[in-house]
Amino acid sequence: MKEIDLSEIKSPADIRNMNLEQLTALAAEMRSALLKKLSAHGGHVGPNLGMVEAVIALHYVFDTPQDKLVFDVSHQTYPHKMLTGRMAAFTNPEHYDDVTGYTNPRESEYDLYSLGHTSSAVALAAGIAKGRDLKGGRENVVTVIGDGSLSGGVAFEGLDYGATLDSNFIVIVNDNQMSIAENHGGIYENLALLRNTNGEAETNLFRSMGYDYRYLNYGNDLRSLIEMFRSVKNINHPIVVHINTMKGLGLPVAEADKETFHFSAPFDLKTGALFNESDSADSPEDYSEHFAKHMLCRMKENPDVVTITAGTPGVMGFDKTRREEAGRRFVDVGIAEQGGVDVAAGLTKAGLRPVVGFVSSFLQRAYDQFSQDIALNKQPATFVVFYGTMFGMNDETHLGFFDIALLSNIPNLLFLAPTCVEEFDAMLDWSIKQTTLPVVIRIPGTTATSNPEIKVLDDYSNAEYEVVRQGEDVALIGAGLMFNTMKSAADLLAKRGISATLINPRNLSTLDTKTLDTLKNYKTVITAEDGIIDGGFGQKVASYLGEAPVKVINLGLPKEFPNRYNYAELQKKCGLTPEQIAEMV
Amino acid sequence: MKEIDLSEIKSPADIRNMNLEQLTALAAEMRSALLKKLSAHGGHVGPNLGMVEAVIALHYVFDTPQDKLVFDVSHQTYPHKMLTGRMAAFTNPEHYDDVTGYTNPRESEYDLYSLGHTSSAVALAAGIAKGRDLKGGRENVVTVIGDGSLSGGVAFEGLDYGATLDSNFIVIVNDNQMSIAENHGGIYENLALLRNTNGEAETNLFRSMGYDYRYLNYGNDLRSLIEMFRSVKNINHPIVVHINTMKGLGLPVAEADKETFHFSAPFDLKTGALFNESDSADSPEDYSEHFAKHMLCRMKENPDVVTITAGTPGVMGFDKTRREEAGRRFVDVGIAEQGGVDVAAGLTKAGLRPVVGFVSSFLQRAYDQFSQDIALNKQPATFVVFYGTMFGMNDETHLGFFDIALLSNIPNLLFLAPTCVEEFDAMLDWSIKQTTLPVVIRIPGTTATSNPEIKVLDDYSNAEYEVVRQGEDVALIGAGLMFNTMKSAADLLAKRGISATLINPRNLSTLDTKTLDTLKNYKTVITAEDGIIDGGFGQKVASYLGEAPVKVINLGLPKEFPNRYNYAELQKKCGLTPEQIAEMV
Repeated sequence: MKEIDLSEIKSPADIRNMNLEQLTALAAEMRSALLKKLSAHGGHVGPNLGMVEAVIALHYVFDTPQDKLVFDVSHQTYPHKMLTGRMAAFTNPEHYDDVTGYTNPRESEYDLYSLGHTSSAVALAAGIAKGRDLKGGRENVVTVIGDGSLSGGVAFEGLDYGATLDSNFIVIVNDNQMSIAENHGGIYENLALLRNTNGEAETNLFRSMGYDYRYLNYGNDLRSLIEMFRSVKNINHPIVVHINTMKGLGLPVAEADKETFHFSAPFDLKTGALFNESDSADSPEDYSEHFAKHMLCRMKENPDVVTITAGTPGVMGFDKTRREEAGRRFVDVGIAEQGGVDVAAGLTKAGLRPVVGFVSSFLQRAYDQFSQDIALNKQPATFVVFYGTMFGMNDETHLGFFDIALLSNIPNLLFLAPTCVEEFDAMLDWSIKQTTLPVVIRIPGTTATSNPEIKVLDDYSNAEYEVVRQGEDVALIGAGLMFNTMKSAADLLAKRGISATLINPRNLSTLDTKTLDTLKNYKTVITAEDGIIDGGFGQKVASYLGEAPVKVINLGLPKEFPNRYNYAELQKKCGLTPEQIAEMV
Repeated sequence: MKEIDLSEIKSPADIRNMNLEQLTALAAEMRSALLKKLSAHGGHVGPNLGMVEAVIALHYVFDTPQDKLVFDVSHQTYPHKMLTGRMAAFTNPEHYDDVTGYTNPRESEYDLYSLGHTSSAVALAAGIAKGRDLKGGRENVVTVIGDGSLSGGVAFEGLDYGATLDSNFIVIVNDNQMSIAENHGGIYENLALLRNTNGEAETNLFRSMGYDYRYLNYGNDLRSLIEMFRSVKNINHPIVVHINTMKGLGLPVAEADKETFHFSAPFDLKTGALFNESDSADSPEDYSEHFAKHMLCRMKENPDVVTITAGTPGVMGFDKTRREEAGRRFVDVGIAEQGGVDVAAGLTKAGLRPVVGFVSSFLQRAYDQFSQDIALNKQPATFVVFYGTMFGMNDETHLGFFDIALLSNIPNLLFLAPTCVEEFDAMLDWSIKQTTLPVVIRIPGTTATSNPEIKVLDDYSNAEYEVVRQGEDVALIGAGLMFNTMKSAADLLAKRGISATLINPRNLSTLDTKTLDTLKNYKTVITAEDGIIDGGFGQKVASYLGEAPVKVINLGLPKEFPNRYNYAELQKKCGLTPEQIAEMV
C-alpha cells in the first residue's frame, strides 16, 4: 500500500486525484491518527471510526464546498475536519484542542452550522435546497443523519418537507444499528428489514415518505461508497441513500462495546481501560451513579415506579446491567424528548409513577409537552435534569445553564434544586410518592456532594426556603450548587465580623414570600444561581423586592453561548466565587 | 327513520342498545344540532361535522370510559361531548357555553386530557397503554389523530414508541385530506396512495413503522365503522385504522370550502356568510391582513423574500388567493414548527430572507430550534409572533402570553414588540433587510392600531428605548400593546399634575442601560407587558435597577393557565388598566 502523508491533505481537492489504492491508504492513515488522538484525548470514538470511508467518499465525489454537506449532530465529523484544512488537529498532539468536537462555521467554510443536538440536519438541508432552487443554483445538497437521530421528531418533519422538493436532495442515512445505546422504536424494525433484504423489502419507511431509495450494505467499503455517491450525484429529486456502517470500526474494544465507546475519556487502545480513574464508573459516586442505584431501590419497593430516558440511559447511570435489572419498567423512547414527556404523561394517567431523566441541554426540545401535557394537565411525573450546571458540558451546543429560565416559568411545575445528595434523595422520594404535582429536580451531574447537616423535608410542595443561618443586614440566597458557594462566602464574611443570613431556597419556581418579606429592610440581598440570570430565579426575587428599600443583586451567567470555556474563568467573570461575593458585600 | 330524543342520551351506555337504524337517526339528529349550534355560536365546524359517525361508532363499540379514548388536538370532540353527559351544551342555546371546545378532564371522566396543540395524542396514549400493561389491565387504548396532525414530529415519536408495545394499541387515523389548510409533506402522498388503493398499496407508512394496518374508505358510514372497530377491539398488538372521512359533511358550504370552515365565527347556514361583519375578512384591517399585504409587496420588490408557515397560513392573512400570488416563495411545512424554523435556517444559509409566522401558543414547540439552529448560529431569519397577547385566544390550551418569557431569554435573538402598525412595518422592513441578527417581532393579532406620531428607526439592532415623553419622578415603561395603556395612564396622571416619563422599550430582550441609568434616582419605575411577569421583560428591568434607590413595580400576568377568562376581568385583576396604573402612582 502506498504511503500517504496526511500533512499534505489541505482540502478535499487534495484527495480528488487519488486512485482507490491511495484512498484506501488514506483511510487507514486517518483511522490510525484518529485512534491515537481518541485514546489520548478522548472524544466521540465509535461514530467517527465508523464514518472514515463514507466521509472520504463524500468529499471525493461531491464538489464541496460548492456542494453543501450538513452533518446531523455533527459528532461524527472528525474525518470531515481532517479533510477540510484541519488535519493538524488530529495528527499533532499540540494542536488537538484547535478544533471543537462538532462542525463550526467559525472553523471552516466546509462547516455550515454549529450543531450538537440531533435530528435537525434534514430540515436544515431541505431549507438550503429550497433556497438553492429559488436562487436558481445547481449544487448538490447532501445531509448525513445517523439511524439513532432518526427517532427525533424534527428529523421526521425534515424528511416530510424535504420530500416535497422537486429537485436534488440527498439524504445519507448512516445506519450503524446503534443510538448512543441500542435503538428503540418501530422504525428500527424497518431499518433491520431493509438491511436484511439488501434494501429490497417492499415495506420501506423512506419510500413511504416520498423518497427514492438506495441501499448499500458495505458502508465502510470505499469503492462501493464512491460508486453509490457517484450514482446519486446531480440527481434531480429527493433520495435516501441508506448505508450500513460499523460503529467503532478498527478498534476491537469499540466494535465489541459500542455503547461505552460512543464517547470516551482517554483510554488504553488495547484494553479499553480508562487512563484516569476519576473518569471511570468506579470513581467516587457522581449523581448519575447515585441516581441509578437509588431508583433501582425505589423500583424494587414500588411496582408503580417507571424510569424513562430519551436515548441517554448512561447519563442516568443506567448501564446495560441496570437496565436489565429494571426490566420492562425502564423505558427508552429513543432520542425523542417530546415523546418521552408524553409517555410519562400517559403513565401518570394510568396510575404509574414515572421518573424521566434528561440532559439539561436536550430537554428544551420538549418545552411544549412540559407546558401542555404535563403542567397544564397537572400530571404528577418527576423529571430529573442532569448536567444542569455551568460546570458540566462546555461546548456551545451542550450548555447546561438555560433550564432554570426555561422550565421555572411554566405554571404548575415545581422546580427543585437540591444542594447536596441527601436533599436530592429526599426531594426525589417525596416526588415519587406524591400524586398531585409535576416536579422538576435539577442536579449538576457532577460528583455527588454530601451534607449530613441538611434539613430535609417530608413534603416539598409548599416551596419553603430554609434559613440555614440567621444573620443581619445581608442575605445570601444560593440556589442548588450555588448554595455551597454562598455558604463559603458567609464563612468568609463571618471571619470579617459580618453576620450574613444564609438561605437555601430549595425551589426556584415559586417565591417563599414569607421568608422574602423578612428581608425587606436588609441592606442587601444577593442571589446566586448556576444558570443564566435572565428569566431565572434571582430576577423573580428582584422583582418581588422591587418596591422594598433593600438592594438586590442577582448573580449568575450572562445570556450568551460561550464555547469550550474555562470553568474557573467563567465563574470569576460572573463574580461567582465565594471571595468575590464576600468582597461585594 | 325513528325519532331520537337527544336529551335522553346521558352517556354512551344509552346508545349501546340501539340498532343501526336508531344510530343512523342519532347521527342525523346530532349533526342537525351541531349545525344549529355552530352557525349560531361558531366553533370548529369542519372537524366536528366529519367525525359524527366515527365518534358514535367508537362509543358504541368500545367500553368507554373503561376503554381509553384520547383525541388528538381535541377540537373534533363535540360529538364525543354530546354522547358523554354534555348533550345540553349542544341542544340548548342557554347552555352552549357550558363546555369548552376541547376535551377537559374537569368536565368529564371521558376526557383524559386538556388538549389543544396537535400531534401529542399518540405518545400520550402509548404511555397509557404501557401503564395498562404494567398494571396488568386489559382495557383497549384508542387514540384518534387527524391526517393534518400527523406532520408534527411528536406524532412520529409517539408512533415510533407505540409500535414497540406488545399489546393492544389502536391508532385511528382520521384522514379528511386536510390540515387547517391543504396538507403539505411527503407523507400525504402516501396517504393518498393508500386511499386510492383502498389501503392495499405495498408502500405504507404505518406498516413501515411497525403497525398492523386496516383501511376504511367509508369513514362516515356507521355500519362500516362499527364493523371495523369491532374487528380491532381487544386486538393484541399495535394497529393503525385509517378511515377516510369528509370534513364538513352535511354543510355544503363547508364541504366546498374546507379551509374557511375549519373554524368559523357564527355564520349563515345557507350562504356561509358571517353574521358579524367584524368577524369577516373584510372588516377593519387586523394585523394578519396587514401582514399579508405588506409581505406581498416586499416579496414583489425582493426575490429573496420567502414567507413560511407551519400549517396556519390564515393566521398570517395568507388566504388561498394570496398563497397563489406568492407562489413558490410561500412555504407551508405543515404542522411542524420545528421543521419550519430549521427550513428558515436553511434558507438564510442559502442567502434568502425568510419571514416565518407562528401563533404565539404554537411556536413553543420549536424552542430547541430557535435556541440552537437560529440563535446559536445567528441565522438572520425573521419570526413574527401572531396572537401574542392576553387579548387573543383565551382557551387554556391556546394562551398567547408565554412567548416573551420563552424567547426573550435566548442569547443573540432580538425580541421586538411594536406598539402600532407603523412601528411593526418599520421593524419588519428593517429585519428583512439586515443580514446579521435573528429577529422576533411580536404582534397581538388584533385590530392593527395606528400611531402616526411614532418615531420609527432605520435600524433596530441597537435596542434603544424611545423616551416618548420626558417627565420626572415616575417612569412608565409599556411594552408592545401595553405602551398604549401606559400612555393613557400618563395622560391621566398629567391631569392630576403628575408628569410621568413615558417609555416605549421597542425591544424586550436587551436592556437599554443608558436609558435605564437615567431612571435610577426616580421614585418609581413601572413596567407593563402583555405577558407573564415571571421570566419576562419587567423582571430584567427590576434586576438591573435592583441596586438603585428607585422602586420598581412589574405589571403583567401571573404564571397561570386561566381558561376562557374574561379579558376585562383579567386585565383588572392584573392591575393593567390605565386607571389602576395612575392610581398606583
